[in-house]
Amino acid sequence: MSRPKHGGNLAWAAAIAGCPVSAILDFSASINPLGLPQSAIAAINNNLERLTAYPDPNYARLRSVLGDYHNLSPDYILPGNGSAELLTWAARELAQQEVTYLVTPAFGDYQRALSAFNANISVCHWLEFPRNTQPKLNRAGIIINNPHNPTGNLWTREEILPYLERFELVVVDEAFMDFLPSDREQSLIAWVKDFPNLIILRSLTKFYSLPGLRIGYAIAHPHRLQRWQQWRDPWSVNILAALVTEAVLQDYEFQQRTWEWLPTARSQLFEGLSKIPQLQPLAGAANFLLVKSEISCTQLQQTLLKQDKILIRDCLSFPELGDRYFRVAVRLAEDNQILVSAIARILQKD
Amino acid sequence: MSRPKHGGNLAWAAAIAGCPVSAILDFSASINPLGLPQSAIAAINNNLERLTAYPDPNYARLRSVLGDYHNLSPDYILPGNGSAELLTWAARELAQQEVTYLVTPAFGDYQRALSAFNANISVCHWLEFPRNTQPKLNRAGIIINNPHNPTGNLWTREEILPYLERFELVVVDEAFMDFLPSDREQSLIAWVKDFPNLIILRSLTKFYSLPGLRIGYAIAHPHRLQRWQQWRDPWSVNILAALVTEAVLQDYEFQQRTWEWLPTARSQLFEGLSKIPQLQPLAGAANFLLVKSEISCTQLQQTLLKQDKILIRDCLSFPELGDRYFRVAVRLAEDNQILVSAIARILQKD
Repeated sequence: MSRPKHGGNLAWAAAIAGCPVSAILDFSASINPLGLPQSAIAAINNNLERLTAYPDPNYARLRSVLGDYHNLSPDYILPGNGSAELLTWAARELAQQEVTYLVTPAFGDYQRALSAFNANISVCHWLEFPRNTQPKLNRAGIIINNPHNPTGNLWTREEILPYLERFELVVVDEAFMDFLPSDREQSLIAWVKDFPNLIILRSLTKFYSLPGLRIGYAIAHPHRLQRWQQWRDPWSVNILAALVTEAVLQDYEFQQRTWEWLPTARSQLFEGLSKIPQLQPLAGAANFLLVKSEISCTQLQQTLLKQDKILIRDCLSFPELGDRYFRVAVRLAEDNQILVSAIARILQKD
Repeated sequence: MSRPKHGGNLAWAAAIAGCPVSAILDFSASINPLGLPQSAIAAINNNLERLTAYPDPNYARLRSVLGDYHNLSPDYILPGNGSAELLTWAARELAQQEVTYLVTPAFGDYQRALSAFNANISVCHWLEFPRNTQPKLNRAGIIINNPHNPTGNLWTREEILPYLERFELVVVDEAFMDFLPSDREQSLIAWVKDFPNLIILRSLTKFYSLPGLRIGYAIAHPHRLQRWQQWRDPWSVNILAALVTEAVLQDYEFQQRTWEWLPTARSQLFEGLSKIPQLQPLAGAANFLLVKSEISCTQLQQTLLKQDKILIRDCLSFPELGDRYFRVAVRLAEDNQILVSAIARILQKD
């Protein structure tokens, strides 16, 4: 079995660990460890008979619920089959620019989607963004994610807002923004009405622990979203994903528990990894940490899989990082401790 | 609420009928009336915890199961978020031809998908296909569905095969083919290895009564499907759809019951409608019937909704048919009788 291009390929990991997929302790996918909300399970169990009807092609109710949640008119919202589907259409629009700036290291699917429409890509290292991102061409676009994957860096609104004036098209992937409580988040959603050149991508995958269900949404000007609806088929979001979204957005208890868990668990993991001499974690605002390492991370990944059935995310798909970085999700305290102890044990022997 | 462009918009119908969506007797969507297979329900209920992991981006197991079912290598199969998603990518390829022939009346989404990539479309009436479809340009594509929606016409393999020699690209949408038992079906799947210019689209939506779950697949040469995988995101099929597919393809009991129900129920409905003087149903091979009418079908549709909470499919989205045709799904005997009686009662008063 070949190494997966993206993270999260548990079948590959289980084959190396010699165990069933369910036995893998997965730090590679940055998913909320509180698991599927009970409200999501109930929404599925109570609505199976609705699978025999097509989804409403306008997704009127779903858009209305999302609009209420973000205090926006439903016209500004387009739900998708995961934000990954909507990235494809955002990339089609970016490709119409003379150049698209890609802030690197970047989630591999940005490159895939831009290349699918023959975009002219110019890379910009994240440490040089936003300083050195003066577009040199008249018609330039940019795609960034905030918080940034894989570094965990959070840009403030004030850092990003000037780019709405300088770029013809700005795509901000906020897939991890909901992990920040309302007093810390830096979303640009409230700016979308004033800036027709702004596209925001949001995901429910990470926060609500639903990557298998496929649900995300774009927030942008209605004329743009109407165009996307002509580019894609009418029933992009499955009915269970639509109903689960309506349920979990009102699951305040799950949201509160997540915001209470994360800061403490992330500090614990950060400190635990910092104490290992060969490792240097970067401070991050989301539910994962990027870690710089003095030793080969693919070797560490293999050893962790074989000895501990633990999967960490190598960074080979980020050419700027390569073998000296790995990424780990923040999990519950007990699991974080298992990871730190296992790495410490392995590296002590080096 | 505005009239839906496609069929199957129950919210619109319920608003006119003044009843909840669940009270509508829906003849507009051509879905198997046997309902969700028990095997599908079990596959969902037993696997909810798997929603917390990403789908395998290669869909190796799903492709292998579909490959076994069709006696094909898994490389020839690409699962999609409904066949509607795959139609978008098929249309992107058709758009690269100098002209694409569209056999009309055609499912509205063919036009949408072709226009999304600025295809040059030439229409060909179904009664003139295949006779008059000699391509006049060197690089011509064609998209047909077989059985044909909305007429229900079934072309034989022998009628379609010559077009694989004449056209640069042939897309055959076989969304309703599985309603035909193995001794009557006319699928071109077995020809895909010999014809790299053939794309077949299949759906599980209609036969397994799953339009809300979104699952379909394309069958074509591996090099073509690999290209499509770069055009779309890696996790297009949700995990429940993948697991349900694996289950229902082995649900021989459900398949058998469907093949036993359809011929009798379709004959009954055909004969019932034929006896109404103003109506003239067309003989069809699939699980729906197209009906020619001497009176306005939108008026009949409104009356049926208001008086009987019955929804039939108007044909306004098929410009070649317009207001003098409607389409009805074949349902269980009792429901078919309710429909025939209601229409007979309404038209008797005319």
